[in-house]
Amino acid sequence: LKKINVGVVGATGVVGETFLSILEEREFPVGELRLFASENSQGMKRRFHDQEIPVQTLAEGVFNGLDLVFFSSGDDISAKWAPKAVAAGAFAVDNSAAFRMNPEVQLSVPEVNGDLLPKALAGANPIIIANPNCSTIQLVVALAPLQKKFGLKSVRVASYQSVSGAGRAGLEELFASTKVALEGESLAPSVFPKTIAFDSIPQIGSFMSGGADDGFCTEELKIMNETCKILRAPNLPVSAFTVRVPTLNSHAEAVWVTLERSPSTKEEIESCLAQGAGIELMPLYGKGQNGAALAKGPAQYPTQAMASGQDPVYVGRVHRDRNDANTWMMWVVSDNLRKGAALNGLQIAEQLFDITPRA
Amino acid sequence: LKKINVGVVGATGVVGETFLSILEEREFPVGELRLFASENSQGMKRRFHDQEIPVQTLAEGVFNGLDLVFFSSGDDISAKWAPKAVAAGAFAVDNSAAFRMNPEVQLSVPEVNGDLLPKALAGANPIIIANPNCSTIQLVVALAPLQKKFGLKSVRVASYQSVSGAGRAGLEELFASTKVALEGESLAPSVFPKTIAFDSIPQIGSFMSGGADDGFCTEELKIMNETCKILRAPNLPVSAFTVRVPTLNSHAEAVWVTLERSPSTKEEIESCLAQGAGIELMPLYGKGQNGAALAKGPAQYPTQAMASGQDPVYVGRVHRDRNDANTWMMWVVSDNLRKGAALNGLQIAEQLFDITPRA
Repeated sequence: LKKINVGVVGATGVVGETFLSILEEREFPVGELRLFASENSQGMKRRFHDQEIPVQTLAEGVFNGLDLVFFSSGDDISAKWAPKAVAAGAFAVDNSAAFRMNPEVQLSVPEVNGDLLPKALAGANPIIIANPNCSTIQLVVALAPLQKKFGLKSVRVASYQSVSGAGRAGLEELFASTKVALEGESLAPSVFPKTIAFDSIPQIGSFMSGGADDGFCTEELKIMNETCKILRAPNLPVSAFTVRVPTLNSHAEAVWVTLERSPSTKEEIESCLAQGAGIELMPLYGKGQNGAALAKGPAQYPTQAMASGQDPVYVGRVHRDRNDANTWMMWVVSDNLRKGAALNGLQIAEQLFDITPRA
Repeated sequence: LKKINVGVVGATGVVGETFLSILEEREFPVGELRLFASENSQGMKRRFHDQEIPVQTLAEGVFNGLDLVFFSSGDDISAKWAPKAVAAGAFAVDNSAAFRMNPEVQLSVPEVNGDLLPKALAGANPIIIANPNCSTIQLVVALAPLQKKFGLKSVRVASYQSVSGAGRAGLEELFASTKVALEGESLAPSVFPKTIAFDSIPQIGSFMSGGADDGFCTEELKIMNETCKILRAPNLPVSAFTVRVPTLNSHAEAVWVTLERSPSTKEEIESCLAQGAGIELMPLYGKGQNGAALAKGPAQYPTQAMASGQDPVYVGRVHRDRNDANTWMMWVVSDNLRKGAALNGLQIAEQLFDITPRA
């Protein structure tokens, strides 16, 4: 088996560290591993299996000899360095937004549109592959089997997003501001636009004042635009309202999906979702011994805390809208650092290099 | 000016205490004040202006001589005792769900359907008036001016609800579980169906297993049913997805509202909302000296923490859905203990007794 020489840009961030963990967990056949981060991380090391690997800063020539570089350092770094990785002969899997909506760049969720990915071992030329926004990935994983079986007419999603989406600084700001709030004091925000302790903030990313955004924040625009691109449904109406809530990790989404052809029963749509790649369906009253949904029992559904550290996109609370037989509601939860970022990135690499992960 | 003899059932709960504060703030002309609570509160007193008033338990005859009784002690207590208050000659303003959907009982939000309330001073017979669900009240206050000016075609709402909706025990459970979570431990839930610290729970109230609920939880059914009743729009499609988030007080709602006749500009819909009774509009970039929305600046919107302790229903992030010119999105926030419960109850009383509150 060919070993893959891997670079990780942003190796000391929470996504970069998660990527290293998942490389180990899934026994990706890593040859050489090079770690990169900004000058703030100079002198740091990160453990990979039994090695302590020093973190380097980016410089000309650092990608020479690599087969794959995973980028998770923000749009500017990716815009500058991902093309250099490709020029050096590596596939660049880019977790930033820099290339996602570039019509010449693939935006990949392997379960959904992985058929578009090239085969590196068959001699395909290195390219940049964009890793979608975290909230988008879990949404399209849940929508894909419905699109295939029933057709999609429209989608509305309200999100409940964790602070880990803003990285380690986001986690630290929630911890610090919560500690202070428990003492009855308030901490001025730095990472988030308002103090996040015990509050919800209806803004993720920024607004572009002047009207180009039509009142949507950038996270909402990402979900709306990227979902259409990944599902190859450029005219699908997708409407998003994104909100940061004071939770640690994993994003949750309340979704209304209107189908072209609605199934007549909940069992039918749940069965479709349960068979969807990457999905773990949680029926409201649990599953019986044969795996089928039970008709009563204690209510079950995924939450952000239970999904944290897990790989699946959890789908729960599937039920039909009372007002429209073709509209279904569901609650979609997944770990934004794993399936929403690092895991999806590694799954792209597995497909590029035709690698079967450890079960 | 006639003095009103007032009873408060559930006087030691967070809604009851808020009701007492608001009675003072608005200088309601209280004659005698009698406080009631369960046996757990025996021996307690509550301060009102400069008096210490002992808390009594409910018994036959306790309502004699009262003009108004506010109930906030749960469905069973209201079902049993509100009719007794009426029989004793008092108007019963009931914050429970016991009578809300009874077709013979008014479900009142004074700004919206207060025209239906009788006039006590003109000799109207005492009756039970139901105070709506907290999440419903703020929603209908925001929808009412849009209904009047543009007509409503459908409504979808995803909620972000604070723990104070579950009373003092809910607040204590969030504080206690958060303190423990900051130490890396977990506290088993008691009030909520899951541990609420740093997590969102897509269940408020209960599910009725067996299918009568169609997969909606009771809070969702309340919003859907009560909104239609209050807006006198029995066939309006309202679809709700309710979620408890780890915030202290005030509920927030991401709302999609589809209008019969859409305004052509955001200014037009914002102007309609700004003039709506009980609404405080927050344009995204703030208001200029003339009160009109600015075109750019730092993003502004209400949050649960800022709305806590305030009276208005705050409406922010008003913008048009990209996919449907008749659909608008907005973020509606209000204090669930005040406008969502105690304040609305007192506003009902003010209208019944023709009392102008202190400005």
